[in-house]
Amino acid sequence: MSTVLDDSIAIAARRRLDTLTKPHGALGRLEELAIQVCILQKTLAPRITRPTALVFAADHGIAKAGVSAYPRAVTTQMVRNYLAGGAAINVLARELAFELSVVDAGVDADLAPHPRLINAKIRRGTRDFRMQSAMNSAECEECLAAGASLVTRLAISGSNTVLLGDMGIGNTAASALLMHCLTGRPLDACIGRGTGLDDAGLARKLAALEMARARCNLPRVPHAMLVEYGGYEIAMLTGAALGAVTHRMLILVDGFAVTVAVALAARLDPAVIEHCVFSHRSAEQGHRALLNDLGAQPLLDLGLRLGEGSGAALALPLLRAAIALYADMATFEGAGVSQRSA
Amino acid sequence: MSTVLDDSIAIAARRRLDTLTKPHGALGRLEELAIQVCILQKTLAPRITRPTALVFAADHGIAKAGVSAYPRAVTTQMVRNYLAGGAAINVLARELAFELSVVDAGVDADLAPHPRLINAKIRRGTRDFRMQSAMNSAECEECLAAGASLVTRLAISGSNTVLLGDMGIGNTAASALLMHCLTGRPLDACIGRGTGLDDAGLARKLAALEMARARCNLPRVPHAMLVEYGGYEIAMLTGAALGAVTHRMLILVDGFAVTVAVALAARLDPAVIEHCVFSHRSAEQGHRALLNDLGAQPLLDLGLRLGEGSGAALALPLLRAAIALYADMATFEGAGVSQRSA
Repeated sequence: MSTVLDDSIAIAARRRLDTLTKPHGALGRLEELAIQVCILQKTLAPRITRPTALVFAADHGIAKAGVSAYPRAVTTQMVRNYLAGGAAINVLARELAFELSVVDAGVDADLAPHPRLINAKIRRGTRDFRMQSAMNSAECEECLAAGASLVTRLAISGSNTVLLGDMGIGNTAASALLMHCLTGRPLDACIGRGTGLDDAGLARKLAALEMARARCNLPRVPHAMLVEYGGYEIAMLTGAALGAVTHRMLILVDGFAVTVAVALAARLDPAVIEHCVFSHRSAEQGHRALLNDLGAQPLLDLGLRLGEGSGAALALPLLRAAIALYADMATFEGAGVSQRSA
Repeated sequence: MSTVLDDSIAIAARRRLDTLTKPHGALGRLEELAIQVCILQKTLAPRITRPTALVFAADHGIAKAGVSAYPRAVTTQMVRNYLAGGAAINVLARELAFELSVVDAGVDADLAPHPRLINAKIRRGTRDFRMQSAMNSAECEECLAAGASLVTRLAISGSNTVLLGDMGIGNTAASALLMHCLTGRPLDACIGRGTGLDDAGLARKLAALEMARARCNLPRVPHAMLVEYGGYEIAMLTGAALGAVTHRMLILVDGFAVTVAVALAARLDPAVIEHCVFSHRSAEQGHRALLNDLGAQPLLDLGLRLGEGSGAALALPLLRAAIALYADMATFEGAGVSQRSA
């Protein structure tokens, strides 16, 4: 997707970095990050404006199969926690200064209106994908459109950076099936312990996924994958990633479910990847392999396995630092510092 | 060094983390970090107050041997850059909100007084360690005392967290020799390209270190190691790390030179390690091995090789986030969220 303009911006941004009072390349990944943002924003004066986390939440029919360490009701309870301000992502939003909205993509509860809640509910949870398609085609279209539309709304409000997060009991099971469809990796390489399954739970999860896998021919395109396996939040995240491309917004990618959504979106529009900052490598087994498949080198590797955008949030200060260093450091000439002897 | 009190604080801190609205252990390394700070501060209400970076700068006699990609004058030029506010560490101090002081431990220049400059100059650079000891024993004592005293001053001012950084053209050469003495690893495993040596420069560096190594019997204790190989900034950093133990302060450890200083300090007082947050794994070859020898798992791995406290600075938001999550998240009970089914 690289254009002549992109190349000339990359060269000019690299040239600027090499005039700053540091050895060439000494800021490592932060230098690559600054160049990426320059290219994306088509500028040599990049900025991060109104970074906003969108946490997409939905329930999954498969949660009945005991594929999570937590009961299905936790999706709703955690959404209420996000609205009350008590969850990890709330603490991080306050500590790291970003905005936060929670999107009800398909939570199995009636949620009262709240300033931080966006009601985009498709249905109170997907269908059980062991027996039938998780959603129908119209629902999938609706999710993709809603995700893109929410990101458009952010862009209009002046945000150029979106942190994508997810919440949905059972969604690492759906994510594993989607990854299997996308990458062809065997199911047992795509699953993990999610929020903390024991060995018996992991065996139940694999059995449930094998049943789902055997129900129909393996879907070949993202739309069909989402229809078969869900979930509403993952489909909306896919739409959000596609919407970010429309508005040339930067995406801070969180953990497994969000990475799966980004991979689905990239199958539809490869430009998605250039918009992504992969924030962290989670403890979920499939995540590591999927990141490798995407050629992504995440910024952090802290053994996180929480979701809800927490890893994306923790990468935000690194992104801001990369831009500040690029923009505000003195040059060798300006500071009267000698260049290398060689 | 673990005491009964430490153990009971660790257990209580872990118990609190497990009541928060997240799966057990889902915040990965950030949970360990919060517990470490609780133990260090002997409290279940940890806080980070007035985090302050001390960047210790000095010149090295060995710089004449062409062991750096940059001329020796760059030490002084960069110190002036720190005082003018144009270096990476200045940008990070503003972006990430910490205080910054630069310590002249032995820069080869007369520096005018400046509010951000602490004059602790021992001498205008160490002696060339190929031919003679880098410093004498009295100078080494003076460095250790000055480092400890500067940290005491910080503690009195209300700081409980110190970010340690270094600047000194030639100091990865001194660091490599010190690491060789400390770990017994062969010299060629302890050296790297520093700020960007080419192959010929790397060969020169190894030859210079072999000459220094052959000059005397391998020193066995930290004091003798510092006397033989320097430098003044590394000796002062060693004293600063020991001072942090006295005041139970947290140390954010930067790159290779600071890690060597911390390892020297730990040889004198093993409690040093419990005070350290190892911020990052740098691109310098020896750093990775030394971190392994210390059993340290750094928070970041971003290919940085700048020094001057930049890696320590980038880890500060992770430390603050860990404390905020520990302190401010809702509990399962408080938020009405179900615990795991198991």
